[in-house]
Amino acid sequence: MATCFLTGVSKSPVGGFVDAVLRGVGQVFLQNNPLSGLLFLVGVFLSNCVVGLYALLGVAVSTATALAAGVDRSTVQRGFYGFNGTLTAVGLATYVKHGYALVGYVVLASMAVPVLTAATRDFLSSEHLPTLTAVFVLTAWTFLAGLRQFSHFTGSPAFARPHLPVGTPHTSGALTPSDLLFGFFNGFSQVLLQTGLWTGAAFLVGILVNSRLSAVVAAIGSLIGLGIGWAFGMPAGTLHEGIPGYNAVLTAIALGGLYYLLSLWSAVLAALAAVASVVVYAMFATVLAPIGLPVLTAPFVATTWACIFAAASFTRLRAVHPADAGTPEANLRSTRSSPGKA
Amino acid sequence: MATCFLTGVSKSPVGGFVDAVLRGVGQVFLQNNPLSGLLFLVGVFLSNCVVGLYALLGVAVSTATALAAGVDRSTVQRGFYGFNGTLTAVGLATYVKHGYALVGYVVLASMAVPVLTAATRDFLSSEHLPTLTAVFVLTAWTFLAGLRQFSHFTGSPAFARPHLPVGTPHTSGALTPSDLLFGFFNGFSQVLLQTGLWTGAAFLVGILVNSRLSAVVAAIGSLIGLGIGWAFGMPAGTLHEGIPGYNAVLTAIALGGLYYLLSLWSAVLAALAAVASVVVYAMFATVLAPIGLPVLTAPFVATTWACIFAAASFTRLRAVHPADAGTPEANLRSTRSSPGKA
Amino acid sequence: MATCFLTGVSKSPVGGFVDAVLRGVGQVFLQNNPLSGLLFLVGVFLSNCVVGLYALLGVAVSTATALAAGVDRSTVQRGFYGFNGTLTAVGLATYVKHGYALVGYVVLASMAVPVLTAATRDFLSSEHLPTLTAVFVLTAWTFLAGLRQFSHFTGSPAFARPHLPVGTPHTSGALTPSDLLFGFFNGFSQVLLQTGLWTGAAFLVGILVNSRLSAVVAAIGSLIGLGIGWAFGMPAGTLHEGIPGYNAVLTAIALGGLYYLLSLWSAVLAALAAVASVVVYAMFATVLAPIGLPVLTAPFVATTWACIFAAASFTRLRAVHPADAGTPEANLRSTRSSPGKA
Repeated sequence: MATCFLTGVSKSPVGGFVDAVLRGVGQVFLQNNPLSGLLFLVGVFLSNCVVGLYALLGVAVSTATALAAGVDRSTVQRGFYGFNGTLTAVGLATYVKHGYALVGYVVLASMAVPVLTAATRDFLSSEHLPTLTAVFVLTAWTFLAGLRQFSHFTGSPAFARPHLPVGTPHTSGALTPSDLLFGFFNGFSQVLLQTGLWTGAAFLVGILVNSRLSAVVAAIGSLIGLGIGWAFGMPAGTLHEGIPGYNAVLTAIALGGLYYLLSLWSAVLAALAAVASVVVYAMFATVLAPIGLPVLTAPFVATTWACIFAAASFTRLRAVHPADAGTPEANLRSTRSSPGKA
Repeated sequence: MATCFLTGVSKSPVGGFVDAVLRGVGQVFLQNNPLSGLLFLVGVFLSNCVVGLYALLGVAVSTATALAAGVDRSTVQRGFYGFNGTLTAVGLATYVKHGYALVGYVVLASMAVPVLTAATRDFLSSEHLPTLTAVFVLTAWTFLAGLRQFSHFTGSPAFARPHLPVGTPHTSGALTPSDLLFGFFNGFSQVLLQTGLWTGAAFLVGILVNSRLSAVVAAIGSLIGLGIGWAFGMPAGTLHEGIPGYNAVLTAIALGGLYYLLSLWSAVLAALAAVASVVVYAMFATVLAPIGLPVLTAPFVATTWACIFAAASFTRLRAVHPADAGTPEANLRSTRSSPGKA
Repeated sequence: MATCFLTGVSKSPVGGFVDAVLRGVGQVFLQNNPLSGLLFLVGVFLSNCVVGLYALLGVAVSTATALAAGVDRSTVQRGFYGFNGTLTAVGLATYVKHGYALVGYVVLASMAVPVLTAATRDFLSSEHLPTLTAVFVLTAWTFLAGLRQFSHFTGSPAFARPHLPVGTPHTSGALTPSDLLFGFFNGFSQVLLQTGLWTGAAFLVGILVNSRLSAVVAAIGSLIGLGIGWAFGMPAGTLHEGIPGYNAVLTAIALGGLYYLLSLWSAVLAALAAVASVVVYAMFATVLAPIGLPVLTAPFVATTWACIFAAASFTRLRAVHPADAGTPEANLRSTRSSPGKA
């Protein structure tokens, strides 16, 4: 099995750390699998090598800080203290030019991530909610907004218009087949704030090696995002860059078999949530514009939390407790083997 | 009794659905009564027929979605899954011009309402807090802010200045008796984003048929809003349109006998909360202006939650649990018949 | 001992009220000590006598309202219902010119403070979180933002640029030793929105009379704020006015021995949190700029909550329950005398 890929290596201390780091990257798409993490890293390096190095720095500092603070090792090993570090580092490196000040800033942000992760996990566990990428969104917003008060940093061109590309050069033209192809794969790339066909393909394969069902569900999510963005009249350039799709991809993965057992009704909920995530994206884009902050994966977090929270009242659906959620396949198997439990 | 008005009809499946829908509209002013709901609908139709049809669409879709998802029937029957749908549909139809895109958008928003209602009820039940109109505020803000990223919708004139009319043509003039008369009734109309004497009167009568005490308390709330708005120097036009009053009306209903047993001290709290709701309205108007969103009933929700939450520490007041709250009269009666319980 | 200073007086009803009021002012810097409160008041009067009178009005109205509402006397006696009233009154008097309208507005805000304090204490107690100055931040933001809709108030010059002085006349010049001296003491003064060497010195002495460890920790916090502000490139004028330091001072006091038992690891956490509080300050300054609101002590609240919330997962640190937290010295003593408990 793919999950056994690094089992031998992970028994040494260094190997264990590398395993935790790779699983940390894997958790960006909710995949607890070092091979997935490796493929997601490959995707980022294909798009931008400097950002890729920051991604490694972020996940390593976050994971090491969690271990130093005495956090439960098995939780760290599953990558739960790393993925927000990867994402935060990628977010900062995307909007700020590389330099010594940025390295220090990213290290500080990555040390804040385990503190916020521990706080969020503690708060949400009583509500049976997974933390998703909430800590990334909060940390990256804080450190990005903070930048505007500090003069020792240089913003990248993207920092001038951080609410993601509504109204790029593509806008004026009509929608082309190339826009649809790019839109589909960029729906994956944008989860890590990248663009590019190969990057998106690497991310999709990274999901596939851990769960075929999640890969199918994610692909449908990207298509739903693209379709709804088109139906409501988003400009062609925005569709091309995968903007309506990236939150739909993550929402579809989370609700399509992971935190709800896959069934006809949970598929309907996941599809509707993917649709809603496009509206929630648009809301955040409007609300954040005056402050000059990017939307990041806030729409995914908000939409998915609402749908998981509603589980207790929706008797037609079977929720899976965050602590037990593996892959859609594993969830279905464990329910079949112990039907009395569900 | 007025609450028996539709009892016969409500025993058939269709009648039950109509009953749930009308109670859903009734809950907009916290009245669990189909006749109240009918009068609120009449008030909306008196002001704007198109908006009235959207109000019906919203409450019907929300109620039907909740039933389809398997929500507890008795909760749906009391209108708890409908009122946020009515309000959200009215909010969208007020700011966006009628068209096919809007119908689809309202249906989607009304399907999101039961998900958020279930999530909010689950979260707040552990805190003994009623959900009030929080789901309406959240859903309407999300879908209204989202609109600005989509080109297939046409905003109504109101969408250009959605933070409600501060500085209308009335502003320059001095306060007239007509302003006070309109201000009093518009304090009711604005709860459903309408203006007009007859609409406000229909809303007041709708409350009256369910609870005389609530009607008196609501009228005092509207007067308090008007008085405080004048004392702090709001322009005459703003007072005319009922702006300072509509949150004071709802806050007074909620705290004046519904979630606190009516007494001298709870009346003082309700009056002070009505005063505070005007300041909280003004806060939201300032905060939302850069984003271009209307205040809606957020001040009512924030002020009332704070006052209910404080109940455990305020030993001079007797709180009524949200699940037991009926009308001020019924609350007093049930305490008298079982004094040991309170 | 300093804490005995007013013990004799506090046994009469009037003396008890004065004691509660002074402890209320003392709690602004988390010091449950009437002498500390007296010195903090002296500091405010040294800076601005009108603001000092409002500070007394705010704490007196808040404390009296809490007693009238029947709040548990021992909690009121420790000043927990007063300090947010002091701070809110100081906040309003700093941004609005003195007048009858302001007196009424401050009384209303100070009556809202105990309601919000009771609500926040109830909500946070289940999470083992202290309320810190959250109620002040919320109330002051609400009443300050509300002001912009009311014409019967005159903003002070500071109200035109309420996001604290980024870009004052000092900005263009290079950093001087005088900037560092002022920056250190203004890091204390700014906690109560004041500036000035003597005010800052009075605040520092006020902490010292209650806890030497807290005074040392606070001083280190002010230096960390100054250093990080300089390292990230804040303008000299901003450093001069103590802007990066005031949240670091409060964060260091809270985490350096008060809510965590003082140890090597908790000192590292407190130092990192003081660093983070500067970034969080910068974030709030950016986010609040379009709305025109001051940052107040929101960064202290957010940073400290996150670090206390994380306690359950950080096994290297020993948390002190808010209800048991006295001074760093007292916390260490009570652990030594009952080692089994901790």
